Amino acid sequence: MKKRYFLYFSYKGTAYHGWQIQPNGISVQEVLTKALCTILRTEIELTGAGRTDTGVHARLMVAHFDLEGSLPFQFDFAGKLNSYLPKDIAVYKLVEVLPDAHARFDAVSRKYEYHVVLQKTVFKNDMVARVSNNLDFEAMNSAAGTLVKFIDFTSFSKLHTEVKTNNCNIKLAQWTQKEDEWIFTIQADRFLRNMVRAIVGTLFEVGRGKMTLNEFISVIEAKDRCKAGVSVPAQGLYLVDIQYPDRIFIK
Amino acid sequence: MKKRYFLYFSYKGTAYHGWQIQPNGISVQEVLTKALCTILRTEIELTGAGRTDTGVHARLMVAHFDLEGSLPFQFDFAGKLNSYLPKDIAVYKLVEVLPDAHARFDAVSRKYEYHVVLQKTVFKNDMVARVSNNLDFEAMNSAAGTLVKFIDFTSFSKLHTEVKTNNCNIKLAQWTQKEDEWIFTIQADRFLRNMVRAIVGTLFEVGRGKMTLNEFISVIEAKDRCKAGVSVPAQGLYLVDIQYPDRIFIK
Repeated sequence: MKKRYFLYFSYKGTAYHGWQIQPNGISVQEVLTKALCTILRTEIELTGAGRTDTGVHARLMVAHFDLEGSLPFQFDFAGKLNSYLPKDIAVYKLVEVLPDAHARFDAVSRKYEYHVVLQKTVFKNDMVARVSNNLDFEAMNSAAGTLVKFIDFTSFSKLHTEVKTNNCNIKLAQWTQKEDEWIFTIQADRFLRNMVRAIVGTLFEVGRGKMTLNEFISVIEAKDRCKAGVSVPAQGLYLVDIQYPDRIFIK
Repeated sequence: MKKRYFLYFSYKGTAYHGWQIQPNGISVQEVLTKALCTILRTEIELTGAGRTDTGVHARLMVAHFDLEGSLPFQFDFAGKLNSYLPKDIAVYKLVEVLPDAHARFDAVSRKYEYHVVLQKTVFKNDMVARVSNNLDFEAMNSAAGTLVKFIDFTSFSKLHTEVKTNNCNIKLAQWTQKEDEWIFTIQADRFLRNMVRAIVGTLFEVGRGKMTLNEFISVIEAKDRCKAGVSVPAQGLYLVDIQYPDRIFIK
């Protein structure tokens, strides 16, 4: 009998052309699929909860796959799979779900973080974005706080994508400080392509005093990608959480 | 007039054959000296507070050098120097000290940390040691606590070194947990070569239940390197602090 599983894992995105399999570069999906096929000795198709761009990291990503029959290595499937994966991809756990559960369509919320440092740091290269200008994080937080009041985020979307709507229900958007890092956390039911990096780039404009709070709101209201700031580098961006309803999990 | 300066900096040790200049590999001292000579346009000799081995990191290291005349780039000397350094060496600050102050001989205490993870981690490769066995950190902490009662650490020293005494005054030695890491912190007036890694390796024997607390104490009392456990890998070790008396700094 065919069973469906959710695989929970993390990756450092530096060496990968994003999550999604593509012809011109190595992807996390490709490496993970190959490792799964090897240890399960059968063809496996992995469906991810979403895509991440080149250089973007995931502290938590989820993908589903189907398997006929029983899992081998039941006691430490993650450990076994990890031994077949490179050091920049790590599997946490495997969970059985309902046969029609879907890693992408059943996700009810996703959370991203964008990590910024203001000084040179030797231990986090490729894992934070360095910003040399002085930034007014209080002003950036005020602007971030207004995001939850809007629905249409066309202004922060990549042009010419195939989605039917640019509506997102943002539940949380704030900057916090932790040790030498400033971290922007944003949670929503869904995200448009390039959205977090475009939002952060526009918040930087506010932080540098080049855009007022009212101008930031006008950018959102314009529903025009050309009004927003430039996207910030991928290396500071992390997918950190994906939530699913309890009902899809088999206890 | 000749002035003496203390340079405060950090480095990720992965790419270096330790701090000290040597014929067969690139060292942090060599790279930092070259950058200083370049921006100061004169020969500079850097004297470090101590040495770190290949692959060992420094969150804080100090070295002194002398300079005739005034410093250029007074307002952002660290920033200027950083732009001439690779991404794995970062300078924090430069401080003028008394002409006879010495980065090594005037240091009154040094602090090291050893970082351990129990699971595969994708963001800290080369920056933590992974330990797969279950460790009893409570037992390891009890053993660590006994270190402060001893003076002679011959059992944890590299053989055939040139030091006159193996006496160290350990002020602090403990394991703490922070997120997914276990961190061993040890502070002393001085350390013998290889000492921290040999202590951690021996504490692991205690943590794995292969050595009792009393046997750990016997290892110290034996003053015999052959009794201790094997040294742990360099990648988990960080020099994190060096303390100097206030009197050597020019206000």
